[in-house]
Amino acid sequence: MSHITLAHGNGGHFMRQLIEEVFAAQLSNPVLDANADAATLPAMTGELMMSVDGFTVKPLEFPGGNIGSLAIHGTVNDLAVSGAIPRYLSLSAIIEEGLELATLERIIHAMAEAARAAGVQIACGDTKVVPRGEGSGVFLTTTGVGVRDKNLQLGLNNIKNTDRILVSGPVGDHGTAIMLAREQFGLSGDVHSDADSVLPLCQALHNLTGLRFMRDPTRGGLATVLHEIHDVTGLGIRVRQTHIPIQDPVNAVCEILGYDPLYLACEGRVVAVVAEEQAEEALSRWHALETGRQAHIIGHMTADLSRVVLETELGGERILEELEDDPLPRIC
Amino acid sequence: MSHITLAHGNGGHFMRQLIEEVFAAQLSNPVLDANADAATLPAMTGELMMSVDGFTVKPLEFPGGNIGSLAIHGTVNDLAVSGAIPRYLSLSAIIEEGLELATLERIIHAMAEAARAAGVQIACGDTKVVPRGEGSGVFLTTTGVGVRDKNLQLGLNNIKNTDRILVSGPVGDHGTAIMLAREQFGLSGDVHSDADSVLPLCQALHNLTGLRFMRDPTRGGLATVLHEIHDVTGLGIRVRQTHIPIQDPVNAVCEILGYDPLYLACEGRVVAVVAEEQAEEALSRWHALETGRQAHIIGHMTADLSRVVLETELGGERILEELEDDPLPRIC
Repeated sequence: MSHITLAHGNGGHFMRQLIEEVFAAQLSNPVLDANADAATLPAMTGELMMSVDGFTVKPLEFPGGNIGSLAIHGTVNDLAVSGAIPRYLSLSAIIEEGLELATLERIIHAMAEAARAAGVQIACGDTKVVPRGEGSGVFLTTTGVGVRDKNLQLGLNNIKNTDRILVSGPVGDHGTAIMLAREQFGLSGDVHSDADSVLPLCQALHNLTGLRFMRDPTRGGLATVLHEIHDVTGLGIRVRQTHIPIQDPVNAVCEILGYDPLYLACEGRVVAVVAEEQAEEALSRWHALETGRQAHIIGHMTADLSRVVLETELGGERILEELEDDPLPRIC
Repeated sequence: MSHITLAHGNGGHFMRQLIEEVFAAQLSNPVLDANADAATLPAMTGELMMSVDGFTVKPLEFPGGNIGSLAIHGTVNDLAVSGAIPRYLSLSAIIEEGLELATLERIIHAMAEAARAAGVQIACGDTKVVPRGEGSGVFLTTTGVGVRDKNLQLGLNNIKNTDRILVSGPVGDHGTAIMLAREQFGLSGDVHSDADSVLPLCQALHNLTGLRFMRDPTRGGLATVLHEIHDVTGLGIRVRQTHIPIQDPVNAVCEILGYDPLYLACEGRVVAVVAEEQAEEALSRWHALETGRQAHIIGHMTADLSRVVLETELGGERILEELEDDPLPRIC
């Protein structure tokens, strides 16, 4: 069979074959047992953290990745920015009848590669098939368990006045790449998704005592992370447009279509809030990494403001409002 | 707003509102933090087990439960039959644009009740919204983490010749209830889903040294579990039709529609394999529980056979074949 049928989800022969030949063949590791209802996890020392993400990106494949690699990076990154080392993931796949088997194989292959690179293992999985027209190719959900770095106490509540805000690289690449991959705008370009594990970026800052908080700016982009920081801390934020790294093709596409790249998703960047006196140290650690070469200090927390304010290129000021309408659904 | 819109999934204002007012309001507990990327789990002593299940049942609500309660029971039960006490669950919801908010609220309410009853907490969650026609109301995925009972060594490989096979209650109720709820057959009836936590049933057997293996017969039903046991052990299985509990209305509906209830899903039953000399003890423990009153010893493992054989009511024999076609998609 070259396409997924309902029989691939019924618990019987074809489902077992699919699980063995596609999922287990690619994702196999000592913890995963395709015959068991649950996996026994090897002992982990330290406090455990848990995170979950659902993935519905459309198209399933895009420059720089596919929904499979994204499903690893998304959950790995949620744990990484929370100060944990990701270890084991669960995987749920909800597949639409008619999906090409070769597409599914590429997705699971990319997932296996991303898992290896991030040092995580798929501990258990589940597959369901829904009738044609009641799904969308494939939806994935991953839940990750990791060990918290015991020296870290990260959280929005740690953020103080004058703290610096850093971003690890150009923003909006992922959202723009997905948009271009949809071809509905009649545009094409060579923007690649930034989707990647941010674990090295996060670990580089782990022993900085002035590290307050990290987050990966996915849905809603950088602007939405800044709003969350503002909402919880009650502090104002001032960022400078010229300090926010954005790639030229991203800017160009956004200008044509009227999008603001500050609201577009990244899947491989980190926003970090660091004490003023350690901001330069944090920046130089990021600059030393391949994925952090374009990192910038983009602004700071300030009790003098009650909004998120962007200093524009020309010296003006613009208030970054909270996202209301969805500029770009299904980017993750 | 009375219905889910794409803006409920964009990471901004409406999504936060949905999460706070529907998800967090019902599921709140000390571990869940709607503002965090990951949850820190309280310390658990012992070996951890992890299990994941995706839920795509249609219709979303049915006599005896809905997709929300099912999403708790399914994952709780996978851990329970594996010999673990479930503790923390993650939740991913992939919602279709246009879903009535009141329906979602009933689903999450049932989920909260089922979680309380099973003694588990939702540690973290994620919500995505897909455009109308690219999903099906709502898909849920739960991943559970629990602590393994250290005295238990369960597994298909423990099963020996002459071991007895028990089932904790009537089979096929869930599958039949879903089928009737779809109303596509022009039949109605008062069959309720058996969906429930099987944790009490499993715990009742935990200190039986002769307990070899447990499984909840979901997709593919009792017959599929028997086939898995046969496949891995290489031993034959003989079961007696008259010993398999099936409710009269389930039998009646299956006769009309030409289904075999042995292949229909349960969501609150357990199949256990127990050493011959402890089978009666196991049975009496189940009989002492409300959910085990109709438990039966249905057959045994036998090296004299190389198939799964059903002794019919009239004294004949029928080979229970492995499931190939899907009799009833989307029952879980």
